[in-house]
Amino acid sequence: MSEFIWPIRVYYEDTDSGGVVYYANYLKFMERARTECLRSVGFEQDVLREKDGIIFAVRSVSIDYLKPARFNNLLNVVSKITKCGHASMTFKQDIKIEGEQDVLCSAEIKIACLDSNNLRPCPIPAFIMKEIPCDS
Amino acid sequence: MSEFIWPIRVYYEDTDSGGVVYYANYLKFMERARTECLRSVGFEQDVLREKDGIIFAVRSVSIDYLKPARFNNLLNVVSKITKCGHASMTFKQDIKIEGEQDVLCSAEIKIACLDSNNLRPCPIPAFIMKEIPCDS
Amino acid sequence: MSEFIWPIRVYYEDTDSGGVVYYANYLKFMERARTECLRSVGFEQDVLREKDGIIFAVRSVSIDYLKPARFNNLLNVVSKITKCGHASMTFKQDIKIEGEQDVLCSAEIKIACLDSNNLRPCPIPAFIMKEIPCDS
Amino acid sequence: MSEFIWPIRVYYEDTDSGGVVYYANYLKFMERARTECLRSVGFEQDVLREKDGIIFAVRSVSIDYLKPARFNNLLNVVSKITKCGHASMTFKQDIKIEGEQDVLCSAEIKIACLDSNNLRPCPIPAFIMKEIPCDS
Repeated sequence: MSEFIWPIRVYYEDTDSGGVVYYANYLKFMERARTECLRSVGFEQDVLREKDGIIFAVRSVSIDYLKPARFNNLLNVVSKITKCGHASMTFKQDIKIEGEQDVLCSAEIKIACLDSNNLRPCPIPAFIMKEIPCDS
Repeated sequence: MSEFIWPIRVYYEDTDSGGVVYYANYLKFMERARTECLRSVGFEQDVLREKDGIIFAVRSVSIDYLKPARFNNLLNVVSKITKCGHASMTFKQDIKIEGEQDVLCSAEIKIACLDSNNLRPCPIPAFIMKEIPCDS
Repeated sequence: MSEFIWPIRVYYEDTDSGGVVYYANYLKFMERARTECLRSVGFEQDVLREKDGIIFAVRSVSIDYLKPARFNNLLNVVSKITKCGHASMTFKQDIKIEGEQDVLCSAEIKIACLDSNNLRPCPIPAFIMKEIPCDS
Repeated sequence: MSEFIWPIRVYYEDTDSGGVVYYANYLKFMERARTECLRSVGFEQDVLREKDGIIFAVRSVSIDYLKPARFNNLLNVVSKITKCGHASMTFKQDIKIEGEQDVLCSAEIKIACLDSNNLRPCPIPAFIMKEIPCDS
């Protein structure tokens, strides 16, 4: 699929006293990028929840931290959907510094589609599947 | 009133690349202390919400940052309720390093009691007022 | 002065189980906006720290929470500098939902200029004062 | 090895508008527990950094989210060290609600020992290895 690239600026809130971005915060950056990736193909998650009764929840994350990001870096989160199942999809997300090739951290993140009323897995609606740019 | 003292350990998540606790995070510490202060007199906020239909929301904060806290510091949040109104109460909360006298930051925080259904102000229930240790 | 407006999207990370933006997180939004305000007049804070030996630190915050922001809202942080002292400046920062007039929260935030080596107050350098759009 | 159990209370700051703990925040809980695990065998990370010139950094995380934690839950982080290499160690960390058997989330987290001056991998000092309760 075509990659979806979302820029993220590193602010003080994202860093820790080790001088680098705190390890949990890369997951925030990746979730912002997934949200914007869905928005870019027409889906607002508050609408999906209220009108369509579905939410997306993270089932698993596997992430490698290769090089640190630092205060004031301009990052890009490079996302693609590598698997689309009946009720889940898997994102591959890499973070790089704008203009550089090195991957700072790289994650595989599995997302489940849940019924917002009972939080049980449910099929990804066809109108979403149709728009999701997926390789599999 | 008697003060309520709640210990907080500073972890990496709380600090920023300036080497100190990030300024917004002191508000997290203070909210933990208010939650524990209410618990200490018998009130669980999830029960208050579900059974009694009320939540507490912050209306205003006035905070002075005097000295920084750092990674691994053991802090105490010293809280007291300085005003109890019909539908609101005001906390004075100071943060110190365990065993030291200097106040690192000092805040006055006004809390409103809200109806959890419509988020409108409502009176603080009498069974709470009775237990809250208030000076005013 | 002319206002500086910075857009902020509300993500899940910013909200809490009350369904609204967590009160401390508005301070993150405001700090992002101050950082971008300085960048817009030519100052990168990592450069100021490394080359010019200064950092900016928050001395005090006075904030009123008027209406809540929610998941997926697109907010604007409207910032202006209302006072410029020798070694400090004061920002007035209001947060609104894009396209709406209501102020969700409104803060006055005093920033001190510190020597990055000893964290003591120092004068704001003239080359910064010259560029800062200040009313006072 | 013997497990190390560290209690964590869920506050509003940890939750999101989905009504559950935000997925990145479990990594904060796990890092608090690792810090306390090291403290329990005598090591303060600020001292390790300043006196011994080492810091610990996360190299990779693999985490499964099985059931959500909610506001006001009292959690236990159950940690053990499953591998001790020359310059790294691996933690297995499970989170449960106090008094319950279900695992809410389960992670394997690889930590590298770094020279604090150049952030390059370095051997875990013998005086630490001696105290770390490791199965491997």
